[in-house]
Amino acid sequence: MRSVSPSEFFKSQIRTVRGWPKAGVNFRDVTTLFHNPQAFRMAIDVFASDCERRPVDIIAAVDARGFALGGALAYHLGKPFVLVRKKGKLPYKTISESYQLEYGTAAVEIHMDACKPDDRVLIVDDLIATGGTLLAAAKLFRELQGNVIGVAALIDLVELGGSQKLRAAGLNVHALCEFAEDE
Amino acid sequence: MRSVSPSEFFKSQIRTVRGWPKAGVNFRDVTTLFHNPQAFRMAIDVFASDCERRPVDIIAAVDARGFALGGALAYHLGKPFVLVRKKGKLPYKTISESYQLEYGTAAVEIHMDACKPDDRVLIVDDLIATGGTLLAAAKLFRELQGNVIGVAALIDLVELGGSQKLRAAGLNVHALCEFAEDE
Repeated sequence: MRSVSPSEFFKSQIRTVRGWPKAGVNFRDVTTLFHNPQAFRMAIDVFASDCERRPVDIIAAVDARGFALGGALAYHLGKPFVLVRKKGKLPYKTISESYQLEYGTAAVEIHMDACKPDDRVLIVDDLIATGGTLLAAAKLFRELQGNVIGVAALIDLVELGGSQKLRAAGLNVHALCEFAEDE
Repeated sequence: MRSVSPSEFFKSQIRTVRGWPKAGVNFRDVTTLFHNPQAFRMAIDVFASDCERRPVDIIAAVDARGFALGGALAYHLGKPFVLVRKKGKLPYKTISESYQLEYGTAAVEIHMDACKPDDRVLIVDDLIATGGTLLAAAKLFRELQGNVIGVAALIDLVELGGSQKLRAAGLNVHALCEFAEDE
């Protein structure tokens, strides 16, 4: 019997919803992974062991599924937790960064006091697609002179080029598994 | 020297942003609590000790700040974690419940497989205001024959009547601190 690799295990925990949100798209639904305590714990513990090898001062996460992962990781590591939110959601003084969507643009924000200069920041999200949001998030922390060390995600949709773009921007990228578009 | 009560400690960790999102509103900003690992840990640990006295099978949390708290609590307890989302955000088969806003209505959804009959469900959010969203969330789990045992939140805005409404619906309510509107 062949043993299951961690990547295969994580993939098996993610539900594909075909034709959502529109025809032709295979949506990767992480709620099934969140629903399995063993899988959720294993995901957080893998990210935490990355942080032992490459220490961080701040755990940041991207609105909204990223908050579930980032909150658990920050709790487990005992590190400050920072929200990266869609524009207009944060109440205090913010800095904002726009990024390109398929049609038009969007923007993400962090609070001005989200990190101090030289703080080592890890950005967490559920999925890496085109990398637009995550790169914008990294720029925000760099604007505050934070030291963005990398991105941690459950899934990398490699064909969309996001992880490549993030690495080209000097970020470590760790995704627990990959999906091809037609899987 | 008078010692600080847990409630006073939690209040001291929350930033009030006056006049946001509109004039006359005092917004309670929990990002400062998330940024303090000691406060975040203490909040999660208080919720977890509630769950020792009153066991739960499922941790649910409300979009989006609730996900940070719910994710950490579910991780810590080793329980399944369920997302309650604004309408249109969940990809699989959902059930939906509308609730009243100041002007108009909104709706929240959960996946059809969010819980099994008799599962004991705790719903987590950052703040109890009018209770509309939380009551709608409780109705959804009850529609799936879940046993909704209560609501856990960082803040209760008591004057808005939400916690009273939730208790009238048979839910245990535990908020770590309260704010009066004019504080």
